[in-house]
Amino acid sequence: MKSIDVAILGATGMVGQDYIHMLANHPYFRVKCLTGSESVGKRYGEAASWKGAYDIPSKYADLEVLPTDPRVIDADLVFSPLPTDVAKTVEPLFAKAGFPLVSDASTHRMEKDVPLIIPEVNPDHIELIKIQKKNRSWDGFIVTTPNCTTVGLALVLKPLCDKYQINKVIVTTMQAVSGAGFPGVPSLLIIENVIPYIKDEEEKVRIETLKLLGKFDGEKIMNANLKIAVSCNRVPTLDGHLETVYIESSDKLDVDDVKETLRSFQGEPQRLKLPTAPTQPIIVREELDRPQPRLDRMAGSIPGMSVVVGRVRRGIDEHSLQLTLLSHNTIRGAAGTAILAAELLLAQGWV
Amino acid sequence: MKSIDVAILGATGMVGQDYIHMLANHPYFRVKCLTGSESVGKRYGEAASWKGAYDIPSKYADLEVLPTDPRVIDADLVFSPLPTDVAKTVEPLFAKAGFPLVSDASTHRMEKDVPLIIPEVNPDHIELIKIQKKNRSWDGFIVTTPNCTTVGLALVLKPLCDKYQINKVIVTTMQAVSGAGFPGVPSLLIIENVIPYIKDEEEKVRIETLKLLGKFDGEKIMNANLKIAVSCNRVPTLDGHLETVYIESSDKLDVDDVKETLRSFQGEPQRLKLPTAPTQPIIVREELDRPQPRLDRMAGSIPGMSVVVGRVRRGIDEHSLQLTLLSHNTIRGAAGTAILAAELLLAQGWV
Amino acid sequence: MKSIDVAILGATGMVGQDYIHMLANHPYFRVKCLTGSESVGKRYGEAASWKGAYDIPSKYADLEVLPTDPRVIDADLVFSPLPTDVAKTVEPLFAKAGFPLVSDASTHRMEKDVPLIIPEVNPDHIELIKIQKKNRSWDGFIVTTPNCTTVGLALVLKPLCDKYQINKVIVTTMQAVSGAGFPGVPSLLIIENVIPYIKDEEEKVRIETLKLLGKFDGEKIMNANLKIAVSCNRVPTLDGHLETVYIESSDKLDVDDVKETLRSFQGEPQRLKLPTAPTQPIIVREELDRPQPRLDRMAGSIPGMSVVVGRVRRGIDEHSLQLTLLSHNTIRGAAGTAILAAELLLAQGWV
Amino acid sequence: MKSIDVAILGATGMVGQDYIHMLANHPYFRVKCLTGSESVGKRYGEAASWKGAYDIPSKYADLEVLPTDPRVIDADLVFSPLPTDVAKTVEPLFAKAGFPLVSDASTHRMEKDVPLIIPEVNPDHIELIKIQKKNRSWDGFIVTTPNCTTVGLALVLKPLCDKYQINKVIVTTMQAVSGAGFPGVPSLLIIENVIPYIKDEEEKVRIETLKLLGKFDGEKIMNANLKIAVSCNRVPTLDGHLETVYIESSDKLDVDDVKETLRSFQGEPQRLKLPTAPTQPIIVREELDRPQPRLDRMAGSIPGMSVVVGRVRRGIDEHSLQLTLLSHNTIRGAAGTAILAAELLLAQGWV
Repeated sequence: MKSIDVAILGATGMVGQDYIHMLANHPYFRVKCLTGSESVGKRYGEAASWKGAYDIPSKYADLEVLPTDPRVIDADLVFSPLPTDVAKTVEPLFAKAGFPLVSDASTHRMEKDVPLIIPEVNPDHIELIKIQKKNRSWDGFIVTTPNCTTVGLALVLKPLCDKYQINKVIVTTMQAVSGAGFPGVPSLLIIENVIPYIKDEEEKVRIETLKLLGKFDGEKIMNANLKIAVSCNRVPTLDGHLETVYIESSDKLDVDDVKETLRSFQGEPQRLKLPTAPTQPIIVREELDRPQPRLDRMAGSIPGMSVVVGRVRRGIDEHSLQLTLLSHNTIRGAAGTAILAAELLLAQGWV
Repeated sequence: MKSIDVAILGATGMVGQDYIHMLANHPYFRVKCLTGSESVGKRYGEAASWKGAYDIPSKYADLEVLPTDPRVIDADLVFSPLPTDVAKTVEPLFAKAGFPLVSDASTHRMEKDVPLIIPEVNPDHIELIKIQKKNRSWDGFIVTTPNCTTVGLALVLKPLCDKYQINKVIVTTMQAVSGAGFPGVPSLLIIENVIPYIKDEEEKVRIETLKLLGKFDGEKIMNANLKIAVSCNRVPTLDGHLETVYIESSDKLDVDDVKETLRSFQGEPQRLKLPTAPTQPIIVREELDRPQPRLDRMAGSIPGMSVVVGRVRRGIDEHSLQLTLLSHNTIRGAAGTAILAAELLLAQGWV
Repeated sequence: MKSIDVAILGATGMVGQDYIHMLANHPYFRVKCLTGSESVGKRYGEAASWKGAYDIPSKYADLEVLPTDPRVIDADLVFSPLPTDVAKTVEPLFAKAGFPLVSDASTHRMEKDVPLIIPEVNPDHIELIKIQKKNRSWDGFIVTTPNCTTVGLALVLKPLCDKYQINKVIVTTMQAVSGAGFPGVPSLLIIENVIPYIKDEEEKVRIETLKLLGKFDGEKIMNANLKIAVSCNRVPTLDGHLETVYIESSDKLDVDDVKETLRSFQGEPQRLKLPTAPTQPIIVREELDRPQPRLDRMAGSIPGMSVVVGRVRRGIDEHSLQLTLLSHNTIRGAAGTAILAAELLLAQGWV
Repeated sequence: MKSIDVAILGATGMVGQDYIHMLANHPYFRVKCLTGSESVGKRYGEAASWKGAYDIPSKYADLEVLPTDPRVIDADLVFSPLPTDVAKTVEPLFAKAGFPLVSDASTHRMEKDVPLIIPEVNPDHIELIKIQKKNRSWDGFIVTTPNCTTVGLALVLKPLCDKYQINKVIVTTMQAVSGAGFPGVPSLLIIENVIPYIKDEEEKVRIETLKLLGKFDGEKIMNANLKIAVSCNRVPTLDGHLETVYIESSDKLDVDDVKETLRSFQGEPQRLKLPTAPTQPIIVREELDRPQPRLDRMAGSIPGMSVVVGRVRRGIDEHSLQLTLLSHNTIRGAAGTAILAAELLLAQGWV
């Protein structure tokens, strides 16, 4: 396959560096442009101050950090891990200038003509691009991916909603500190502690899940008919959001049947064998004490791209179910899903 | 008030030492006997190997560790923080020998003629002692207190169940490592991690809560009519169990009304002004990010005896509610509730 | 004793709040003025955003936050926990305006005519105030207290240097995150990790210790004749700096003799029975595994004001020694030593 | 190269599982026999209860756990990660029965005719096998590898002692919890804490380093002429022992020269290109805040086999030096060094 040039906006931040890392050996995406704000003009290797455990790949270390301005960008596709407020003004400029843009900022996710995509969950919503381009007279477009906490939940609910009439979902999350970016959560607050609140997170998870599981009627998304209540907590883990999920259905929920439904789930990325698609989007474990963030966040054929489910068990009666899920918040929850979405856009001819 | 001599069985363990610490300045309970197993004959100050942050009070350091045998114990009242299996054979021997015994072991909690007590929640269940003594022909008796995770939940549900018809409760816990005793949870397992499972805990919380909120008809306890689903998790905190709670009711649940109901709750210990009774059994905080284990576990007029509630908010509709609660697992969740129960037994003339 | 009005500059920060907390029940210091920067005009109870585990004392919650300007301050004594750069311009203004000012900022510590004081170590250095007032034509003065890591080390070295000819000290520190203030160390960096570097800290510890242990000849401080090498590390603890210390002497260092020398050490604050003086400035423990930050940081008659020493043992030969010490970095290492210095200034008639 | 059959004694423990993991893709060592104690007769996949983050390789999961008895073992080479007390009686039985045995137990390390080996440091000590076999009339032999804390220190001191006259070394360690095995350090003790003591560890580091750096004169090892003082601390990290090292020499120690000496160090395993030999045994980093346990413990061409050095700087004068080093305690500090030693024994014809 021929090489596709990509640009990463805000590439010096923590999530920007995840893109760099995940794309370092990609079969066809080539990072051609990197943008920043205060570090414009510097070498990327110097500008990216915090690198976590991995070093900047040498082939990208010498790229010059460019301003986040469509006029200086030369790329077939743009990834935007920009902060919310910057994304608001900058992303439309890129779309208007003709770039296909995949964003994991929250800014445009809930706009009616903007697709919010998990490639395994709602690939058909991508068609909303047509409405968007018409509405806004853009040559390019914006496609968004969900909040890091939403992704794991929506992925697990998708095959269940396809098979059963799910009415109610009660979720409690235990989220890693990397979800708050860098510098993020002060150690003074979180060491030997849990913070039972993350600003705006519960509402994001609720409304994004309803849109993701909604139906596209050719014109608009009709939200899924489902009640969701969410409690978000920050715990002292580094990566991996753990979620306990209680589900109610009009149908009887047989535990073995549910496990088999989750295990056998395959989405469009698996059928197309996209490079960043894990062979199993959902891994179900039988051990009583799994998934655990430290042990399971990198599970699967593409590390960090599979959601791990465990403790599938009866709820309060045969119409309800409990399970625990884990998804890697910066891979499946950010860069990884955006890259997978871009691969799907390319496969479908949108790029 | 005249002094009451108490004995503590298994006093060299972690919870045993909590009793020693909480009773060091008690107005009328005097620790007269301490028992152990391998350390029999040693000075208590040497036998209690791990003392946490507090030193053994000097007045108890020289007590000799006695065998756990009613024939050598001289006391008006016995506290039993024994391990489950030891409690099974030993506690009945003490009750048979005429001792009033308050146990926080799980062993006898669910037996039909054994009161399971939180003094603020179900003081009337103490009357079950009469049935127990008759059934078993004992001169003494066993009264039990709940699992450390149950206490906070049942305390918060009590005033709500008194006021509203509560039908369903979905709980997720984030429990501190001290809940597993000492040596307890290996650091290799829990540092930078969450373990989404605690053996037998979910079922204990469910069935104990139903008994605690049940009605005593003069003969037996009729369980509360309530559906409960629980997910228990171990997190890397030292003390304080945090719980997210989702509640459904046939009644409309007004958030302000619920907060006021919780805040104004007073139980029998408060009315009797028992020494270990906190002035407010339930503290409701308005900040978005409270309660937090490290900041709030020692809240209240008797440190560690109040449950702290926060984030009281709507659930999925006006018939449902969400809140987060915190209770200190070794104080309110063990030694503190047992001492408070003993104070109530004394006030009611059972001792 | 009559009441002394004090002002706290930069009172809304983390260390500022420690002063508030420590002065809440002081026998004669009364907090009359509090200053801030962005929060000027607000109630202190609202301005102090992060309060840690303790709430703002109600008697101070309603004080208005004033600008940090001597013209609006009415006080007998000023405490300055200001950031280094702000202290540079602001503290001289207060001294010039006639205020006695005790600072724990690093800014002026090493200036030749500024006393750097630990009340137990070098109370005679206070006389330097005379030189300072003469040099600078100030009505007031600046007295400084050391870096949080220096205090414990200098306190322990003082009685040893008085008794033995100490030539060389090799120190490794394991410092708590609160030493970096708030927000301070990002949790992403320190959870399950050690950072083997703290900017400028090693040099501060070295030069401050030499000044503290130096002799005042009536005109200037002559540094102690001692070689010091320091390695500073940040570890994931909340409070309490732990330090391993290797000491070489021309004299033989008998372990029992050293322990007795440390245990029996008494300084001027102890002789004057100053309110914030712990009865034992240095506590020596015999257990093999103490001091530990979490268990020992609040040791002593004034919690957090005693340095705890353990593992006193031979070094490489009879002229060398090893020990481990712990001192509370925000109490003995900041607010506590400043308050104790102020008490000494008052007792000596400087205020 | 032809395949070599190896046996792992005590294979179900934590270190035993490290061997399994490291040997899973070894070019010539094949795990043929696994032994255990309580789990004899079980499948290895079931017997190895705690597996950390990695699953048991499928090719070994079905091996039957054998008793630790030379009569049932069929192997060319035996690895022994047995507990100290078991090693005492069992290892000589294997050596007597003719097996070449590489042990990382501490039991026999300091015996005069037992080689204590780090392949890069003292490969010539292996010749001691001849003395051992003669003394003990054994067909096989025992070769030992050092304590996990010793390895990193001795590796870094080796090139320095070769080049400079080193007289004195003062070391402080910050050790990970995995160094204590499983279950090891209780989380109640180490969360938000440092424990300033590890039983017997300081003396082991001292005497093992002197033996490792000693000269073999054809008959016996003459210890290095060097004074060492050690302070060992347990910190809440999972893997990777960090050590601050202060060094004194009769020679001037130029910082750049020292760095170059460390960087360019190559040992016999590198010259022989042994499969488990990292290309650089010592990696020197220039960043001020490295090495860090979480970021650097898996550095190098063979993850976990390189020691990472940073902060190389002057000590108290030009004859002294300070540096910080990190080595992975269960890889370079146990299984990895033992496997590398076995590769060297094979290359030299001892197996």
